Parts: sequence; C-alpha cells; structure tokens
Amino acid sequence: MITVTQARALLLALTAPLGVEDVPLIRAAGRVLARPVTARRNQPPFAASSMDGYAMKRAEVERHAMFKVIGEAAAGHSFNGTVGPGQAVRIFTGAPVPDGADFVVIQEDITRTGDLITIANEPGEKDNIRAEGGDFSTGTTISPPLSLRAEDIALMAAMNIPTVPVARKPIVALISTGDELVMPGETPGPDQIIVSNTFGLKAMLETVGADVRIMPIARDTVTSLKTTFELASSADLIVTIGGASVGDHDLVAPVSAELGMERSFYKVAMRPGKPLMAGKLGRSAMVGLPGNPVSAMICAEIFIKPMIRAMLGQDTTQADLMTAPLTAPLAANGPREHYMRAQLDRNGIAAFDNQDSAMLSVLARADALLVRPANDPARAIGEPVAYLPL
Amino acid sequence: MITVTQARALLLALTAPLGVEDVPLIRAAGRVLARPVTARRNQPPFAASSMDGYAMKRAEVERHAMFKVIGEAAAGHSFNGTVGPGQAVRIFTGAPVPDGADFVVIQEDITRTGDLITIANEPGEKDNIRAEGGDFSTGTTISPPLSLRAEDIALMAAMNIPTVPVARKPIVALISTGDELVMPGETPGPDQIIVSNTFGLKAMLETVGADVRIMPIARDTVTSLKTTFELASSADLIVTIGGASVGDHDLVAPVSAELGMERSFYKVAMRPGKPLMAGKLGRSAMVGLPGNPVSAMICAEIFIKPMIRAMLGQDTTQADLMTAPLTAPLAANGPREHYMRAQLDRNGIAAFDNQDSAMLSVLARADALLVRPANDPARAIGEPVAYLPL
Repeated sequence: MITVTQARALLLALTAPLGVEDVPLIRAAGRVLARPVTARRNQPPFAASSMDGYAMKRAEVERHAMFKVIGEAAAGHSFNGTVGPGQAVRIFTGAPVPDGADFVVIQEDITRTGDLITIANEPGEKDNIRAEGGDFSTGTTISPPLSLRAEDIALMAAMNIPTVPVARKPIVALISTGDELVMPGETPGPDQIIVSNTFGLKAMLETVGADVRIMPIARDTVTSLKTTFELASSADLIVTIGGASVGDHDLVAPVSAELGMERSFYKVAMRPGKPLMAGKLGRSAMVGLPGNPVSAMICAEIFIKPMIRAMLGQDTTQADLMTAPLTAPLAANGPREHYMRAQLDRNGIAAFDNQDSAMLSVLARADALLVRPANDPARAIGEPVAYLPL
Repeated sequence: MITVTQARALLLALTAPLGVEDVPLIRAAGRVLARPVTARRNQPPFAASSMDGYAMKRAEVERHAMFKVIGEAAAGHSFNGTVGPGQAVRIFTGAPVPDGADFVVIQEDITRTGDLITIANEPGEKDNIRAEGGDFSTGTTISPPLSLRAEDIALMAAMNIPTVPVARKPIVALISTGDELVMPGETPGPDQIIVSNTFGLKAMLETVGADVRIMPIARDTVTSLKTTFELASSADLIVTIGGASVGDHDLVAPVSAELGMERSFYKVAMRPGKPLMAGKLGRSAMVGLPGNPVSAMICAEIFIKPMIRAMLGQDTTQADLMTAPLTAPLAANGPREHYMRAQLDRNGIAAFDNQDSAMLSVLARADALLVRPANDPARAIGEPVAYLPL
C-alpha cells in the first residue's frame, strides 16, 4: 500500500492540462482563464470627473471666485470646446473633463445665478478628476491560470474583452458497478439499493469545473462492464465506483486489465477507502473508487478534485490544512491515514462517533474532514488537529 | 442617511420567500431545499455484510471451528435459504445476511477446502454486519431550508428521492443606465465606456442562486428608462446601476417615482456606495445601486446577496465577520462605514492604498473587504480588524 501523498502524486502524473476554448464573457464566470487577456483600451479612456460640479482651471480656483458657465459635459456627452480664463463647464460624474480645465469644484461648493457661478466654500485640494488610464491601460494583462470570479468578469468587461480563452472542462465519466444498484425513482428489488455515488460525485465534481456524465450502471458481468467502459472511452477521466476490491465479483481490475489498462497503483493506506486503483485506459485517466458511498465521496474529495484542477491547468500544490482544537477526545489511530467526518463549531472540532464508511447520513451532517496521520496517538480535548473544510 | 444595518433591515422587509418548484435530483445541487423530504426506505434495506467472508451463527464462531458452505450471497443476489448449525454461506460486501446467520467472519480469517471451511484465526468480536436502517429508515426527514451540497444529493439518492422541492430561483433584472455605456465587443465612441456592472453582478448573484437577466442599457431619457423598467417588470428584483444620484441626468428616482415606486429609503452612510435607493415597484422589489463599478459590486455583496437569500427562504442572520491583524496601518475613518478592498496573507490583512470607487482593477486583486465602523480611529499594525472574505 502507498501513502495518500504518494497516491496523489501518481494520480497527478496521469493528468495533463487540456485544451483551450473561447467562451463568451457572460459564460466565463467560474471557468479557468487559460491564456493571458489584454485590455483593449484605457480606463478611464479620458480624464473624467468623479463628481457632479463645475470644471475650470485649477489656477483660478479660490473661494469667492466667479466664472461664466459656457456649456455642459455629461457622461457620454463631452463638451466640444475649450475652457478659457474665467470660464467653467457644468460637468457630471463620468463625463470627460473638457480641454482647458484641470479641476472640478463639486456642486455643493458652488452658488449659481443664471450662467454665473461663484465658489461659495473653500474647495480644498482634491481635483475630483480621474486620470486617463488610472484603472488600467491598453495592454494591461490578466494572467492565467485564474479561476474567474465576478470581480474578474467585471474587469474584463471594462477592458472590452467579449470572449475569454478558458480551459476546456474535463469530461468525467462516472460508472457505478453492481447488480444490487438501481437508479433513483426506480423500485428496487428486495436485495437492491439505490445508486447514490454517481449523483453525489457529479454534484461535487461540477463545483470544481468538470463536465460530468453519468454512465449506465455496469452489472457484475464482464460484458456489461466492457460495454460501459466503451461508452465512457471518450472521457478525459473515467471513474468507476465499486467492484475494485478482490472479491470474486470485483471485475473492475481484471476487465480494465484486459482492455489494456496500465495500472499506476492499487490500494492506498487511508481510511475510508483502501481499495483505490488508478491507471491509464486508452487516452483516458482511470480511477477505481471503493463502492462504499462515503469512501467514494471522500476519495473523490482527496484525489479526484486535484486531478480536475490539474486538467484545468490550475495549481495543484496542496493547500495547508486548517487547524482547530478538539472538543471531544480521539482514540489512537491505526496504520492508515484517517479522514474522519467531523463537525465544527465556535469551540473547535469533533469527529462523529460513527465512522462507518456506509453511513451517508453522517457525511451529510459533516462540515469538515478531520485528518489523522497514520499511527497518530490518542488525543485529548483541546489539542489542535488538522482538518479540511467540506 | 441611514446606517448599513438599517438599510439591510429595510431591504429584507422588501422581500419574501418565493414559491417552490420540483426539480430532478440531478439538477438539485446548489439549490435550496424548500420542503421536508422523507426517506422512502431503510438503508441498508436489510442486514448487510460490510466485508467479504462467510456468514454463520455467532454462537458457533470460535477459532478452529469447521463449517459446511451451503451457498453464496452477493450484492444484489441474496441466499434463499436458512443457515443451520454447522453451516455457513459465502458472502460478499453489501449482500443481505441470510436467515439464520448473525455473524460474518472475514475471508482473511478462513481456510477453505472444497465446501468445508475452518476459522483459522481468532475472529474477534465485530460481527461485520450493518444493521437494517442503520444509516436511515423510512420516514427519516431532511429539513428545509438547506443549501444542497454534493453530500446531500448522495443521501437523497440513497433515500430514493428522485425529485426535490426547492425554492424557485429569484429572477433578478439588471438595468445599467447611461448614455456613456456600450456592451463588451462594441466599439465605444470617444466619450463612452464599456458596461461592466451588469456582467459582474450577474456572475456574483448567480453564485448565490439567482436567475439573472441583463436588460438592454437604459439611456438617459425618461422614455428609455420607462421602456426598460417595463421590460423588467416581471422580475422579483429589479436592480438599476447608476443614475440614482441627484444630478440633472439622474433619472432613476423621478422615473421610478412616476411609475409608482414606494420608496423605502434613499442614501446609506457607507463607502463606497452612498447613493443607494430602494423600494417596491409594482410586484418587484427595486434597488438602485450607485454607478461606480466598485460601489455597485460592493453594495451588491452587502445588500443584494442577503435579499436573494431571503427570497430563497434562507437564514439572513448576518454571519460574524472574520478577524485578522493589520499588516499595514490605517488612517482614521470618517462618518460612514467603510468597506475597503484588502488583501489577506498568512500574516494578516492590509487595505489597498487606492480605494477610488472607480478602480475595478483593485477590486479584482482584493480577496477581502476590510470593514471599518463609522468614525473608527486610526489603527496600527497588529491591531485586529474585521473583514468579509470575497
């Protein structure tokens, strides 16, 4: 058995960044920028007023000074003339500052009678003008990789970038295996259960940017599994769930071997999830997750998410785990790294008593995975422990 | 002017939870559960083996005991018989435990010759059986409101809930106003800029569950603004951007008043974002955001997101702000609450020097808003300050 860290490295070695595709800006949120994009203009594109007021010459600005208003500049409507000595232009927020003016006195400091204005209050030093290109200028670049947030979308809009080069979404094919499985909404036989892994994994992996396809359930026959692998063969990543152990009915290993899978590893020293296998099947990376629902979800959290990030060209350096004090004691851990479902509150973190890897209800209540190293000794209340938020 | 807290309360008073709609489970991730859902079965639906091994009577389990194997139980294929004294059934993970058996010895502890098996190693106390209904039972309920994560989807699948009652997505209509605006991809005139607010706001509000529609840009005429309000009238929430100040070209207040808007408030004591108005326009809530791109985004973060949560039936109690030590000093704050763009690192938080509300590039670099109370005194490096992560 290999360690979690070794398994992660081997899994990342099965992946490579995918191609680039152009998407309209309005569809780019949440995608990963794949190539640099460059501002096509200055922002502001001209010296612009940041306030409603009057534009004039700075040298003439003093309390009690009078000016003649010779025109108006509004956002989208510049004043087509030059401000001369003793003159001012009525100006609104966002409007281009007219030629000849280099100061805006805010309207609250002005009294106006017809076309004559007087600076009634001390206007201060601030010119209330935004310099051309003060936010960004033509050629300002946004660099990949970058997971695009709302703030980035707004900035790219202002830069007049209507189309964005993003990493193609990794196509993930999910294959549940087992004669005992039926789809939600079906009526199971007395020996059957409802498939849950593929539904949970699809939701999980779509949040990190994958395009996830649920394949038909593969039954516990060589023919059924081969057919399903064939259906999945165009995926970037094929994930099987269940059937990866060494029981007589565990066909994933022999069938994928027969189809030419180059196996990268088999079994990881972790709980939950020991039977985990991975390799290359044709052009696809392939990972065999354990069939217990909780094992499958936690292995996907630890192993599949980083693979998706790698395929999107993102940084796969493992983020530091968080730390919190224990609010309940922990018994000594065994020889496998243990990812325990846990609950956080203001005081710290506590693992649930029941860590049975079939208990989905406990996973749904968890908001963190408490991470215990192999052979970690017993821990008392108040000791700091590492966790991964869910 | 009212405070941020007062404004939030008034804005929430403009909203109410929307209706409920049923969506297929596969589309339910990220939606908000609106009614209780109930498990339609026990999980496991029968006492099930948690290991590969042999099922027998606990009373007979001891080292060196021999048994005759009378059949097999696999996942999806139960053994149709009863295990008698001296008998055992070959069993695989997930299979129903046969009648008459109440213990599973794992295969690693067994030696087998033909149909005869011997317990070769001390099998321990653990029966390796998952009790019927141990995870959940018929009638186990998941309660609303709950923002559905992958873990919840997996659990609902196992419960055989193929359709999920979720809160209808609030329809938000975004109206940018101003003669100076053109859409991304267009060629702006010399006095014009590219609209960015609607693109940024759509991305932001969709992450919290809104269905966001970008309306045509409203020009600075009464007719254009009226037409656009009419186009937006079926929305649950109409958000205008710009034109909400008191300049001669700021038409949002007079036109919405003419259309019958009951104004809830006007102006909030915050930076950025002072000119913010809200009220009820027909059946829609309406919020007028300031036109500066950064003001609009930050006001949406502080005010519009809670409104969306309220319409989704979610808890709108304000989450506690985070706290971090300053890594750069701060000057005294003025009379308005200030939401400063800031950057977090391992050592703490620092506000950007330039807080001009037109600077989208600074917002895109920010990963937090440092929140300063009105009249907060100057702060030194190391002092703890409150922030909202972005």
